[in-house]
Amino acid sequence: MTEITRYSGAGVEVVADELVGEAPVEFRLDGVPIAVLMRTPGAEAELALGFALTEGIVLNPGEVAAVRLVEGSAAGDRYDIVLADGVVVDPEQFRRNLYTSSSCGVCGKASIDAIRVTARTIPPGPHISEATLRSLPSIMGQAQPLFQRTGSIHAAAAFTPTGELKGIAEDVGRHNAVDKLVGTLSRIAWPLADLILVVSGRLSFEMVQKAAVAGMPIIAGISGASSLAVELGEELDMTVVGFLSEAGFNVYCGESRISNSY
Amino acid sequence: MTEITRYSGAGVEVVADELVGEAPVEFRLDGVPIAVLMRTPGAEAELALGFALTEGIVLNPGEVAAVRLVEGSAAGDRYDIVLADGVVVDPEQFRRNLYTSSSCGVCGKASIDAIRVTARTIPPGPHISEATLRSLPSIMGQAQPLFQRTGSIHAAAAFTPTGELKGIAEDVGRHNAVDKLVGTLSRIAWPLADLILVVSGRLSFEMVQKAAVAGMPIIAGISGASSLAVELGEELDMTVVGFLSEAGFNVYCGESRISNSY
Repeated sequence: MTEITRYSGAGVEVVADELVGEAPVEFRLDGVPIAVLMRTPGAEAELALGFALTEGIVLNPGEVAAVRLVEGSAAGDRYDIVLADGVVVDPEQFRRNLYTSSSCGVCGKASIDAIRVTARTIPPGPHISEATLRSLPSIMGQAQPLFQRTGSIHAAAAFTPTGELKGIAEDVGRHNAVDKLVGTLSRIAWPLADLILVVSGRLSFEMVQKAAVAGMPIIAGISGASSLAVELGEELDMTVVGFLSEAGFNVYCGESRISNSY
Repeated sequence: MTEITRYSGAGVEVVADELVGEAPVEFRLDGVPIAVLMRTPGAEAELALGFALTEGIVLNPGEVAAVRLVEGSAAGDRYDIVLADGVVVDPEQFRRNLYTSSSCGVCGKASIDAIRVTARTIPPGPHISEATLRSLPSIMGQAQPLFQRTGSIHAAAAFTPTGELKGIAEDVGRHNAVDKLVGTLSRIAWPLADLILVVSGRLSFEMVQKAAVAGMPIIAGISGASSLAVELGEELDMTVVGFLSEAGFNVYCGESRISNSY
């Protein structure tokens, strides 16, 4: 807890407040440093695995043998993504690749032409009803302990087509929240083709890209989608939903996966 | 405008909607590609200049002679940051540097130890009254045309201590919004020590870092601050304010710059 000074209608008071945790973590690939992310501490192994998957470093969770704390490093500081026997990724190639494809947005990409990573073919299903979709933000909100305590953190959640919550992750970075979620769920099934991805923030190009790489055909955001996010969703036959709330939502593309059963 | 399907209490209707623009732009440094950012098109020269400043590539606006569209490139696609005569930045060194310091968060940094860029010494002033501070979000909201039309875009604004709006920028990326603002204002004065920075979103480490490099001692966000953002603010003797609204706000550090004149 941190002491803060709160100015409100009640006057000025010094109160204890919980801040969202933010700290850097370094990931290595078979010993070679490839990236440092600013993230909310916790679930480092899941974040590393999800990051490796959604950034296209590995094609499936089986290509990662383990995620290990680097020897001599304090918990939370440096992790090594150990590839499975026989999996070959040139770290130098990958460093360049990562330089061109960082975890938040595609900032750092050295070439515009290289932006779109290869995403898997998106399956026609699943379908979700309009009523179920509208119910998801409130289910998600109840499963966000850090948000409830801090009022300021992103979340990503996965639901079945009937609205059952299968996983949720919170992080100061919205891309990290998706990566933590994908990393966790990828240990149970891969790709995540039967699940619907709901994120707390905006839908940018890279959020849709991460969903595509994870094989999730439906992505919904509490806020709106960008032009490029919708373009990518259309190109990949995905369903992109924005401004999702109990009162309604906007469908940018892929309406056929939503059944409007009133 | 894009055709979307809107589900609401009124039923299902197809309506025209304006999406937030998002597209990649490549920046070069004296001809060498150094970064690609996802950003909302517009103000590319200001974004490039602000990016070069807040990322520590150049120390003041005078070190940049010009920002030019790369020959043969479509408007908005590729820009060259041309350094002034006598200013020497090794692009290779800088590529590495950028790899370790991308525009959104410090994702991509190759070394945890290298995270904190050198920020200037923060001056003791300016001061702002509690009432003026509370008035800023509404002034800012009225000056955000893209937000009014799309409901989903970040903004960064600079105010004088008496609450006069000196500049505002909107972008799909919150770091870009700050860079566009700083790039624009840096042409008039540098550093921006007399201005207060207000941002629409959360205060992460790198938002505070960008304010520090621009010499702005007071940074306020509509949402909360992260642990590392507050740590950095304390270390640099800055004033960090979160959850700023007409009703009140939280001060994480640097209370002495706020006068609570009721």
